[in-house]
Amino acid sequence: MKKFVNDPAKFVPEMLEGIFLANEGKLKYEPKFNIIYRADRPNKSKVSVIQGSGSGHEPAHVMAVGPGMLDAASPGGVFAAPPMEYCYECIKLMNSPQGVLVLINNYQGDRMNWDMAIEMAEAEGIKVKSFIIDDDVAVQNSSYTIGRRGVAGNFFVIKACGAAAERGASLDELLAIATKVNANVRSMGVALTSCTPPAKGKPIFELGEDEIEVGVGIHGEPGRRRDKLKSADKIVDEIFDAVANDLPFKSGDRVALMINGLGGTPPSELYVLYRQAALRCKKAGFNIVRNYVGNYCTSLEMAGASLTLLKLDKDTEALLAAPAEIAVRVF
Amino acid sequence: MKKFVNDPAKFVPEMLEGIFLANEGKLKYEPKFNIIYRADRPNKSKVSVIQGSGSGHEPAHVMAVGPGMLDAASPGGVFAAPPMEYCYECIKLMNSPQGVLVLINNYQGDRMNWDMAIEMAEAEGIKVKSFIIDDDVAVQNSSYTIGRRGVAGNFFVIKACGAAAERGASLDELLAIATKVNANVRSMGVALTSCTPPAKGKPIFELGEDEIEVGVGIHGEPGRRRDKLKSADKIVDEIFDAVANDLPFKSGDRVALMINGLGGTPPSELYVLYRQAALRCKKAGFNIVRNYVGNYCTSLEMAGASLTLLKLDKDTEALLAAPAEIAVRVF
Repeated sequence: MKKFVNDPAKFVPEMLEGIFLANEGKLKYEPKFNIIYRADRPNKSKVSVIQGSGSGHEPAHVMAVGPGMLDAASPGGVFAAPPMEYCYECIKLMNSPQGVLVLINNYQGDRMNWDMAIEMAEAEGIKVKSFIIDDDVAVQNSSYTIGRRGVAGNFFVIKACGAAAERGASLDELLAIATKVNANVRSMGVALTSCTPPAKGKPIFELGEDEIEVGVGIHGEPGRRRDKLKSADKIVDEIFDAVANDLPFKSGDRVALMINGLGGTPPSELYVLYRQAALRCKKAGFNIVRNYVGNYCTSLEMAGASLTLLKLDKDTEALLAAPAEIAVRVF
Repeated sequence: MKKFVNDPAKFVPEMLEGIFLANEGKLKYEPKFNIIYRADRPNKSKVSVIQGSGSGHEPAHVMAVGPGMLDAASPGGVFAAPPMEYCYECIKLMNSPQGVLVLINNYQGDRMNWDMAIEMAEAEGIKVKSFIIDDDVAVQNSSYTIGRRGVAGNFFVIKACGAAAERGASLDELLAIATKVNANVRSMGVALTSCTPPAKGKPIFELGEDEIEVGVGIHGEPGRRRDKLKSADKIVDEIFDAVANDLPFKSGDRVALMINGLGGTPPSELYVLYRQAALRCKKAGFNIVRNYVGNYCTSLEMAGASLTLLKLDKDTEALLAAPAEIAVRVF
């Protein structure tokens, strides 16, 4: 295992401390429950939007905390759901009379722990609702999931709900926005390599030197099939078709297009993928209004990428265009 | 070789087309000479700031084109200097009565080709100057370099000159700014793995399963020594000391701190490194005014990272804080 890591058991806490140190004054950190939250939160005059899933997917979701995005996140260990008490403490910390919205990627562990925490919080009179994201078209059920998995499409749900919450939307309005965005977003990924959780020390699955996993999950779950390595364009064609035909997207649609790196794939390769995806959109008559190329939802150091398409309407476009700021910065 | 690539000979042109397609209306693309440039350029009322080095280092430098950054870039093939005619055409295209500033990372091939192009442009009456960046403290001379290599510190020279050019600084003023920033910036990197140029198809060097290259160059050049894999903190300690003691930085200094990913290292590990680097800064009495964690200057899919420290003064701080926009976006 070749990684920048100290004690593997401290990988997540040390990463969180790093994120906190890089954002002092903007973010606060509660190490006991892995909670990263906005320094100006909770804000009692707006709905709090929070998330907590396994670590190892950064920037999702703990680096998505900031103005116009999440108010807080409480990740678990690498590829492990946050323990129920992390979820519970995160809800309590972000408690607002306007309510708390919990965005959850569709994995059984995450759902179970958040459901228990929400039940406990509700018993204490806290107004809290959850929403499940399931944008991955690869498979119907998966290793840790009943129903479709939630992957990089999550970014758009966070962005839209974060922007709307900032503008004063109610909890019910945010649920409606999350429902609409999730209904219009589709993703699928491909792995060129496996990845190694620090505490495990071994790759989570094996891939031959000439093999790829088409439709891979962000924890290395099997996808649609194992295939031989193909050209970048052929790989894009397959995942583009799977994604575009699922909604289905139609000629004339205004869309957001994301090429998401899974962690070990450099910008150069992501733009080779973006090129073909953009050309396919043009050919299909999809109007790319916004694009996103980079690491949004990773699987540790896995080499691979996913493609996400979001069908836009005027309101969603405005929410995506709203200002936001997170721990991931360029300048 | 496992990469997202079509014909290896088309890797760079297809990447450039991808960057262009992701920035339509903002960037223009001249495929004949690999030139990516701002759609609103040249602007005859300001100095043009340009760069062109080998590809494979993205976002450096071709994705650093945009308002407040570069006006144009003309990269060569993967790890290959731009041919003289690319440099020449890029200078001509960005010709401005105020002058053209060429920022060059210190590699012999780049210097030679830019020098010839500048000579030709000058013979035609074009006002053009170049500046050499050499921030890498690892070794005094290297495989492709006489003197120190130029690496991720380049970002700060681009940012400062780009911002000053936007404000109307003269060519001489920009040269003074570049000189100051380069004199105050120091970097060093570590590789955990090698990387594979698409057209070569084989790793550019070999590293054992338990080995790292301390002080690696961004083309895989040997550094200070081959070492056994160590903890993240110990690795940071070594490169931090090398960088901090070189200027030397002093207690009370205001600094910018960058942890740059070399392409195959995910955000989670970069923040583990940032943590220790930030703690070392605090211990040394350096005041981190700005920080940068992510991919800035990569070596294809190499797993590894570099650390850059820049000593700030008021003017440089203001230039780093100026608005800018490039092809690398989060939202």
